[in-house]
Formats: sequence, structure tokens, C-alpha cells
Amino acid sequence: MADLDRIRNAALHVKRAVDAGHQVAVVVSAMAGETNRLVDLVRKASPLHDAREYDVIVASGEQVTSGLMAIVLQSMGIPARSFLGWQLPLRTDNLHSRARILEIDGADASRRMDEGEVIVVAGFQGVSPNGRVATLGRGGSDTTAVALAAALKADRCDIYTDVDGVYTCDPRIVPKARKIDRITYEEMLELASQGAKVLQTRSVEMAMNHGVTVTVLSSFEDKPGTIVAAEIEDMEQEVVTGIAYDRNEAKITLAGVPDRPGVAAAIFGPLTQSEINVDMIVQNVSADGVTTDMTFTVTEADFDRALALLEKHRADIKYREILADKHVVKISVVGVGMRSHAGVAQTMFQALAERSVNIQVISTSEIKVSVLIGEDYLELALRALHTAYGLDAA
Amino acid sequence: MADLDRIRNAALHVKRAVDAGHQVAVVVSAMAGETNRLVDLVRKASPLHDAREYDVIVASGEQVTSGLMAIVLQSMGIPARSFLGWQLPLRTDNLHSRARILEIDGADASRRMDEGEVIVVAGFQGVSPNGRVATLGRGGSDTTAVALAAALKADRCDIYTDVDGVYTCDPRIVPKARKIDRITYEEMLELASQGAKVLQTRSVEMAMNHGVTVTVLSSFEDKPGTIVAAEIEDMEQEVVTGIAYDRNEAKITLAGVPDRPGVAAAIFGPLTQSEINVDMIVQNVSADGVTTDMTFTVTEADFDRALALLEKHRADIKYREILADKHVVKISVVGVGMRSHAGVAQTMFQALAERSVNIQVISTSEIKVSVLIGEDYLELALRALHTAYGLDAA
Repeated sequence: MADLDRIRNAALHVKRAVDAGHQVAVVVSAMAGETNRLVDLVRKASPLHDAREYDVIVASGEQVTSGLMAIVLQSMGIPARSFLGWQLPLRTDNLHSRARILEIDGADASRRMDEGEVIVVAGFQGVSPNGRVATLGRGGSDTTAVALAAALKADRCDIYTDVDGVYTCDPRIVPKARKIDRITYEEMLELASQGAKVLQTRSVEMAMNHGVTVTVLSSFEDKPGTIVAAEIEDMEQEVVTGIAYDRNEAKITLAGVPDRPGVAAAIFGPLTQSEINVDMIVQNVSADGVTTDMTFTVTEADFDRALALLEKHRADIKYREILADKHVVKISVVGVGMRSHAGVAQTMFQALAERSVNIQVISTSEIKVSVLIGEDYLELALRALHTAYGLDAA
Repeated sequence: MADLDRIRNAALHVKRAVDAGHQVAVVVSAMAGETNRLVDLVRKASPLHDAREYDVIVASGEQVTSGLMAIVLQSMGIPARSFLGWQLPLRTDNLHSRARILEIDGADASRRMDEGEVIVVAGFQGVSPNGRVATLGRGGSDTTAVALAAALKADRCDIYTDVDGVYTCDPRIVPKARKIDRITYEEMLELASQGAKVLQTRSVEMAMNHGVTVTVLSSFEDKPGTIVAAEIEDMEQEVVTGIAYDRNEAKITLAGVPDRPGVAAAIFGPLTQSEINVDMIVQNVSADGVTTDMTFTVTEADFDRALALLEKHRADIKYREILADKHVVKISVVGVGMRSHAGVAQTMFQALAERSVNIQVISTSEIKVSVLIGEDYLELALRALHTAYGLDAA
């Protein structure tokens, strides 16, 4: 029942928008715990399962919520109709369980909205070129919402979540973290991919590509959230908007590799072919002019596979030894303002040095500086950086 | 998990058929308790709900099982693919939550079966002319199986149930009840509609209309079930094949109605218009030549509504009083053999008279004799009749 209550609560948000004269399309996710229950059933049926059948099973979660939401809206006197992925249709590619949206045909939905109906779309799902149910992977309901907003040329795309917005840092670790009122797509992308779990990276990319203004709001509380939108030129821009972290990194160092052209290709070629994503890379300056050390990070999920591959290619790469460490975290400070401000990295290094936090790897992009540190220092480092960049709440 | 075990067990039956060289299509129902869970969610969302949305929600139960069955079959090395109602497609009319099957396009399914694939069809569901999910009502999975067998011109249609076949009477009440090896469609229809819950009436009608031979088998035990098929001319036919009962009847008597033409129309017209089905009807011989009594039965579900309607039309019908009784049961003895044997009804009346069971209403058809008696006499009467017709197991 806790969950029907949430559907009712969301329906009240819809009613408010309808009463204010808006045309509304709703995208729903599965009820709490339902996706996990279904995934668990699939795993128990067979650990090695067909992704096409996985999709048939898991998509039923959103299907149920879409029908329930339509019924609850109708009970409030709002004409409503549910749409499954194949009914809209939302067309995807054939990559089952992590399909990408190719096209949404919003014609029928638009017509119904013009006639005063609220359409309720089951998120996370579409129909593949073969006419099979295809799911978009976790967070797919956010992506569905943004894609539908783009297809319907919506003025607004409000995403109701467990949190009330995007924060300058994880409030569970940094009590002085503040809610961000407005953030650019680029910053949100960096924060999302760096471990801030509010919005899926794909939904932010989709919003950026189609210029959809997204507002992240709380399902529980009625207060302003965070607007994710394009950069505004004359905005009084903070240098750093937020700080993200990722516990899911593992560090691998190949010591004593030959310092010659082509060694990077020899190392990363096999990893890439096995679809292992390498994140941070640093090559030490050669001390002896003959050999050098190569350090890089992979996700913890790929860690064992990466080590096995490197072992297998030992003869090609010709390293002396492998040093590996899973006890690392990546911290990233993000902000479009740093493009025009020098010294962002310097502030970071100094703040960490003052707390004796050793930086193992550094990587930078136009709007981001990331460092890899020992995982024991995570909380200390986050709080120090939050203060150092002037992000603390008053 | 109890339920994945059942899916695995059913998959073993499929495997045996595949190994024997058969082409197999499987129709699945929802997992135990799942349909009730979903119906409950709908009711909690709103007591007055839209049947189209009800169907979207409730059909998800069979959807999940179809995917799981496909995965389990694949894990046994059997190529398998699930099909939802809209994918087959199984086309229905627009009567949501109790839709009727209009047509099954078995072309794609046939082609896949020719290529060695087992197709797994989510039962109970189809797609309406408006492209909405439509469910067939309870027992719809049996009906789907029979309809699919007809569309695919299958040699056989095996229906796995909680019981191991059709019995001469309810074994919970009559311990000497025997499993019937072979029963005609007509007899099965009478038994099904009279309260024997093994197969839904609609599925038997469908089998009869398309000449599909149905075998009722146990999901749990591996032994011969009951074959439901057309009548065989030279069969050594029992006079009575089985005895059914229905607790779900209620008796209404209108005392002192005018004994004139048109009175039946005045009584039953309003009931029919309100879709209240009247089952047994008896009109007493008029004692005074002026008024008579009219007795009939309705289902208990329609009882209150029927009484209210009769009250409303009191002035038109002109009865003296209404006598109503919910404490009645209907017992029916069924058998195609009784067409050529006299005395079937007489045996019944005598057996009941010997136990002092008062018969309140009698109705007969070509292959059935039904009586309405007080519900307290149900068990006594069933056992007496089972013995009287020579149905007792040795």
C-alpha cells in the first residue's frame, strides 16, 4: 500500500498541472522493489538467460504502474489512458536489456492530449525492430520521460525522485552540502557519470541533445528542486558547482614497461577489445630512459577480468610486474565556471595536502578535475574540498 | 520458488514432447496468487476502475510466466520464444476483462515451430480492435490453449491443472468418485457449467466447435488424465457419466401472480435487461385458475439485484409476495447415454426420496437432469446418487 500511496501522491502533482491548464504526459517507473523482484525471478529461472525474455518479464513492472496510475487519475475525474512501449510506439534498437531509443511516435499521444486526456506511459520500455519488448536498462524511466518530452515538444519535464534535487555533494557525507538551484547539462553529466545517482547519464545526454529543460523534484515534499538546463551566458557562475565521488574504481599499475612508442596500444588494445573501459591513465616520466610505469583505473566489476587479460598478454606488453589496488576512490570537482578561472586544481591539491591526503592519479577535463585517493580518506577529503571551494551552506 | 518449480516441472513435460519429435506450443497462466495480487492492487487503486486499465495490469501475470517458461526451456537446451497476446497476435473483441477471441494469427508461430522452436504464449490475453490489451476473464488460459490448438491445427491439446482429470463427482464429498477416462464435449460442458471447475465452459465450447481433442492432466503427477472429445458411436456408454453440483444458486418464488399470458415476460423482461441470468424456472399449476406461483433461480451474486428489480416492477407483475431462499444447491446428473435410456430421472427421484430429500425444483435437458434441494442435504444426496447410478469405484 505504501506504493499505491506514492502513485496517488504523484497523481496529485498531475492534477495540479491539469487544473493549471497544462497538457500532461506522465512517465511511470515500477513500484518500489518490483524490478528487483522480477530480476530475481529471472536469475532463479536461469543464471544464463536470454535478454529478450528478461525484457518481457522485467517490463511488466512499469506496465502495472501505468495501469494503476491511469486508474487513480480517472478516479480523480481526469481522463487518462496508459501506453506501453509498443503502443506508443517507442522504437528502440535490438540491444535487449540496455536498448537505446531510436524514435518515439507521439502522434496518437499528442492527439489524445489535445482532446484533454492525460497519457500515462510505462517507462523503461520500448519495442525492438523485431517487435519484441525491449527495456532501456536501469534509469530507463528518466530517459523515457526526457525522450517523450522532446518528442512532444514539451515546455517542461519534471522528474520526481527520492531526493529533492541535486546537491553540491553527497549530504550523507557532507552535512553542509547545499541543494543546487540550477545546473548545466554538462555539469550534470559530469556529476552523474562521476557517481551522483540522481539522474542517469543517458537521460541528461538526451535532455542536452534535445534542449529539454529538466527539473528534479522530490516525490514526497512540495518544494523547488534543481533545474537542469543549458548554460546562461550572464549567469553569476560559481567556479565549482559540485563534488562527486566514485567508490567503484580500481587501480592497476604496470611497472617496468618499455618506454617506447606503441606500448600504450599494447596495453589498452586487449582491454578495449574485451569492452573494458579504462578511465584515468597516467604514464610516469621514465627514470632510466628505458622502462616506465603505467597506471590506470577500471571499474571494480572489470578488475579481475582486466588482470587476467594483462597476465595473458604479458609477453606482448613486457612489463616487470602488476601492482593492483581496489581500495581507491575517485573524487571530481565539477563546474563550467572553471573554464575561465585558473587555480581550481591548485585549490584542490592544497586542500588535500593540508590534510595529508596523498593523490595517486590526477585527470582533468574542461569542466572537471579528478583525483584518485585511498578510500579511507574519502569523507575527510570531500568535506575539506567542499569548504575549500566555498560550497558550504551558511 | 514453489512456483518456479512448477514452471520447471511443466517444462519437463514440454521437453518430453519435444524429445518425442513433436512440435510444441505452450500456453501459460499466471503464477499462483499473482492474478489475485494484481486484481487486489486494482481494487485498492479505485473500486470503480476502467476495464481497459484493469486488463493492462492483470495481463502482466501471464506475461511474466511466459518469459520465465521460455528461459527455463532455453536452459534445458530447447529453443523457445515467448509471445504476448499482441505479438501473436490473438485478436479479441472490445469486451475488456471478459473479451472473446475473434481470431488467432498463427502464421509466425507455425513458421517458428517448423524451424524447431517451442513457442510460449501468455494465456488469458489478446489485443482488442483498438490496440489495447484485453483479457479473456478467469479460465482464459485454457481457452487460449484450445483456440491456439485449433489455429495451429494441433493433434493434441494437453491442459495441466491442479487435478489429475475429470471425476464422476467431487472427490472431496464423494470418496468413491472415479476418474473419467473419456468424456464427450457435451457432457463436459454440462459438468463445467454445473460447477465442476476443472475446465472453463468457454474452453470446452471452443474445443467442441473446432473439434480439438483436449486432455486434462495433473501438473504434479505423471499419469493418464481425462480425454475430452467427440462422441464415439460404438462406445459402451454409461447412462450417467458424472454428477455436478452448484452452491451458487438462490431461489426466488413470486407467489400469487396472475395466471395469464404475458406474466412470464413481465417477470423475466426486467431481469434480462439487467443482464441477470435466470437458470431453473418452474410455474406451478394454478390452483384457483386465477393466480399461480412462479419459482426460478439466479446466481447468489445477482440475488440482491434481482430482488430489488422485482420490488420495483411489483405494480407491473402484480404478485402477492416474494419468497426468497439462498440456502439451496443444484445437483445435476449428466450423461449422453441417458438419451437412449429411460428412467434416469426416476432413479434420481427415488434415491432422494429414500433419504427424505425434498426436491424443490426440477429441470431436464437431453443429457442432464437437475434438481434444486436444501443445501444441508448436498453431501447426502451426492453420495446417494453416485451409488444409485453405479458410479462408485470398486
